[in-house]
Amino acid sequence: MDVLRLDLTNLSILREPAPPQWASWGGRGLIGRVLSEETPATCDALGRANKLVFAPGLLSGRGVSAGDRLSIGAKSPLTGTIKESNTGGNPGGSLACLGLKALIVEGRAPSGGKYILHLEKDRAELLPGDEYWGRPIFEACSVLRQRFGKNSSVLCIGPTGERQSLNSIIAATDPDGYPSRSASRGGLGAVMGAKGLKAIVIQDPDSRRSAPVADPAGFRRSLKAYHQALNDEYFTSKIFPEFGTAFVMDNVNHHGAFPCRNYTCGTISHLDKISGKALRELILQRGGEGRTTHVCMSGCTIRSSNVVPDASGKRLTSTLQYEAMGEFGANLGIDDLDAIARLNEMCNDIGLDVIETGATLGVGIEAGLLEYGDAEGAIRLLGEVRTGTVLGRLLASGTASFGRVMGVRRLPVVKGQAIAAYDPRAYKGLAVTYATSPQGADHTAGYPLYSTLDPHQPEGQVALSREVQVLRAANDTLGLCSFVLAVTGPQPELVNNMLEAAHGPGVCLSFPEALGQEVLRTELAFNRAAGFTPAHDRLPDFFRSEKLPPFDLVFDVPQEEMERMHEFE
Amino acid sequence: MDVLRLDLTNLSILREPAPPQWASWGGRGLIGRVLSEETPATCDALGRANKLVFAPGLLSGRGVSAGDRLSIGAKSPLTGTIKESNTGGNPGGSLACLGLKALIVEGRAPSGGKYILHLEKDRAELLPGDEYWGRPIFEACSVLRQRFGKNSSVLCIGPTGERQSLNSIIAATDPDGYPSRSASRGGLGAVMGAKGLKAIVIQDPDSRRSAPVADPAGFRRSLKAYHQALNDEYFTSKIFPEFGTAFVMDNVNHHGAFPCRNYTCGTISHLDKISGKALRELILQRGGEGRTTHVCMSGCTIRSSNVVPDASGKRLTSTLQYEAMGEFGANLGIDDLDAIARLNEMCNDIGLDVIETGATLGVGIEAGLLEYGDAEGAIRLLGEVRTGTVLGRLLASGTASFGRVMGVRRLPVVKGQAIAAYDPRAYKGLAVTYATSPQGADHTAGYPLYSTLDPHQPEGQVALSREVQVLRAANDTLGLCSFVLAVTGPQPELVNNMLEAAHGPGVCLSFPEALGQEVLRTELAFNRAAGFTPAHDRLPDFFRSEKLPPFDLVFDVPQEEMERMHEFE
Repeated sequence: MDVLRLDLTNLSILREPAPPQWASWGGRGLIGRVLSEETPATCDALGRANKLVFAPGLLSGRGVSAGDRLSIGAKSPLTGTIKESNTGGNPGGSLACLGLKALIVEGRAPSGGKYILHLEKDRAELLPGDEYWGRPIFEACSVLRQRFGKNSSVLCIGPTGERQSLNSIIAATDPDGYPSRSASRGGLGAVMGAKGLKAIVIQDPDSRRSAPVADPAGFRRSLKAYHQALNDEYFTSKIFPEFGTAFVMDNVNHHGAFPCRNYTCGTISHLDKISGKALRELILQRGGEGRTTHVCMSGCTIRSSNVVPDASGKRLTSTLQYEAMGEFGANLGIDDLDAIARLNEMCNDIGLDVIETGATLGVGIEAGLLEYGDAEGAIRLLGEVRTGTVLGRLLASGTASFGRVMGVRRLPVVKGQAIAAYDPRAYKGLAVTYATSPQGADHTAGYPLYSTLDPHQPEGQVALSREVQVLRAANDTLGLCSFVLAVTGPQPELVNNMLEAAHGPGVCLSFPEALGQEVLRTELAFNRAAGFTPAHDRLPDFFRSEKLPPFDLVFDVPQEEMERMHEFE
Repeated sequence: MDVLRLDLTNLSILREPAPPQWASWGGRGLIGRVLSEETPATCDALGRANKLVFAPGLLSGRGVSAGDRLSIGAKSPLTGTIKESNTGGNPGGSLACLGLKALIVEGRAPSGGKYILHLEKDRAELLPGDEYWGRPIFEACSVLRQRFGKNSSVLCIGPTGERQSLNSIIAATDPDGYPSRSASRGGLGAVMGAKGLKAIVIQDPDSRRSAPVADPAGFRRSLKAYHQALNDEYFTSKIFPEFGTAFVMDNVNHHGAFPCRNYTCGTISHLDKISGKALRELILQRGGEGRTTHVCMSGCTIRSSNVVPDASGKRLTSTLQYEAMGEFGANLGIDDLDAIARLNEMCNDIGLDVIETGATLGVGIEAGLLEYGDAEGAIRLLGEVRTGTVLGRLLASGTASFGRVMGVRRLPVVKGQAIAAYDPRAYKGLAVTYATSPQGADHTAGYPLYSTLDPHQPEGQVALSREVQVLRAANDTLGLCSFVLAVTGPQPELVNNMLEAAHGPGVCLSFPEALGQEVLRTELAFNRAAGFTPAHDRLPDFFRSEKLPPFDLVFDVPQEEMERMHEFE
């Protein structure tokens, strides 16, 4: 497969065969390789030397259910670490089907130049982007798809990314053509904006399974086994399709792990109004364009996405996931699903990460900018971001910067990045991931979703986090959605058989251990060169000193044990 | 001598003899000891675990000319490193004369408590500070000296420190009772504000030479030799008294080292309007309360300070130094000495570091907030800081935070702290100090003022910076003003004789090498434990890539050579 290099400094495009040492890599793993080999770890993340890498997974573009996630990565301007954030939607599969192992965006457009990149089967062209610059994401994508056709997938930044705000996403269009998915974490939208690139439009392939396969018959067999397993499993065939990620809410409340009012209480009394069940009922009752189950990328059989309609049945947002419930519903105390959906959609449109935004607004409650439960206040503040006022810019610069400027001490961040909507004191394995992941406080880098370990007990959490960090690092290299881990975790041969059939025997490292460890090793080495040490692998002090009601929990996993986390190195 | 511990968490005061291992330490060196022994390097700088240490120098309180500078230190909220910033004024000598080796402020006042500390010869009391909270520095100090008497010295924070803004100073009163001096760098005012302490009022001693001396006769002899040397030397007897630090301006312009318009040009065309000579003439011409020479602390024979009068002869500001000229005059392009003096006084009153503020406003020019030469714009923006608007808080949060939020890439900072008003490309030895000092980009940590090495050439600058970093680290431990290095640098025995007579033979390490190296070793170890590595010892990339007019200079000291800086460790 090929690598396409777009250099904004001299406005050049080069397509060439991928170097042989990248043959066994894709997705997150390939991003680690590219950045380690080509980007100085100490560079300014928003400067010319950083590279923005779009890498489909090792299994993408081959008709693998939930297998077309696109990894996007760079040195993060938010954390200063290496960062990979992967997104659903159709661009990942489309890139793979164009025969691209990676699209590497380099340099920085001279004197404020604004561009878009258009990719077709046999052509790549850099076009003036001035007419799209300044437009919010939904409008920009709509205009781009009018121009380039409905059979196009789009990756696009919002006004936040253009302004190089540190909490900026890169949005991706779903099969309906809506930019409802995104690579949200770590401020990758700011990297794209700094380079002067507003959007990438990719012509969709005729067949979404046209990426090369070494052994077609073997691949068909292994693919069938994998799909069968997805259909047989309870989570992937029942829970996710019916409730999406909001199904976790009962459990989160049961464990007292909600991040209420900037992490001061772990439970909410209005769960029944915003639970997964309440959301499902609202969607069913309103009908119209609403969907309780919906695909985020073509060919996915899990269908964990949804479309939330407004009272008239018109699409209000898609997809409404747990993180929006946790951040807007619990952290901000908003008990109105319409308001939560509206905030979710505003984030998607302006280009803000829901998690970082919710955490920032939670800190904003402490700073006196809004009240707990104040949906209109939250909507008004996101309006400031849209307009780009000083307050808006500050809100869009991430929880750590916002809190430092506003003089708030209780900041739920690690390495400059907000933790997700699970309190570390109640979910201790996840907390270890927040503290130690080379990706910063990103729950997707090691969320022990399927573990039976009591999340309140400190013992065993480091080992658990290590196990799931390895598993996720491996999985994010494949292009597979993390939800498939319900089947591929217990049956790794489902993955290894597909890898061998797709790439040939002995090409890829074994899933998950060998593969995941190598990914982490590469990332940790990059971070060390960027100046990170075990001193940075810590949670904010208040999680160790303040008791979390109602269970009076503190975070009590020993720091020394966490610092031995990456002993496999 | 004793140590006084004020613990704000439980509102307790404890006076006890200093531990024996601190006998050979004072000032900056003692701060390194205290923080290393008592503060976790990874703590939140604005949290309960950080300690704010006030330490007179080893020679303070003993009638040594220019020898009563007070070192103030903590883990810096701005840089995350260890930080010492020393101030003139009378509090240092007064503390030493109270028999205090250090005042250590610990903990954090419960539930927003606001306090002041009052120190007398035999008494220390913590008093309610609510009535002073919210007042700017000059007003607060005036009210405090009305209450506690004219024979009081005051250390005080402004609204910035109260708000825990990262660019917050701790001001100190001069012999006239004006809070015109400050420990400016590294945000120490925010540490004091976070603890809930507005001010420290210290009863001045009857004799300002009452700190203990081991060998009085020997001390008198060595003191006489030192004072004689100061009187004989050209810089300390002529240049500093006549022009203050503004004398460097001709040289700075000659070398093209001014920081014009956020470090885009090294010379200014309006030098004649704001030079040291112009300032001197303005003061002489206006008369009134104006003074071309003035003491910043009682007993100083160098008298490098000044008082700038307004057109009616009334005190406008004191002291107006090179950094204000460089930042407001060159960086912001303001050619009006009255406006520069007014901005200087606003910083002193609100509680902002002039260097960090000037650098922030220079970045503000790039962000479109003001024009080059726009004095009214600068005054208006400092007004926002005074009021505490969101923009004001952002401006007061330091150049790095401001630039990140506003999306400006060319940020003249190292380790989160603004460099001083000397361009690194033109003053390469100083630039090495910016990059490598354990104190962050603080020019006072290693300014090669008296070197004859061509500052444009890269060769030899690492060795030069190392030499002056050692010298400054040693000097800052003594309580001596750096201006005396013109005599004590070439004649270290002047210092060593005083140290031996004051503290006894063999108690103190030898000035400067052994003493300075040990200070740096301690600080570097703290920083390593806090998570700093050689990857942080770098200048922003643009100094290496953008040529500085008019001499087309880039910073070209090899990074590898800088990273071997601290080989004496």
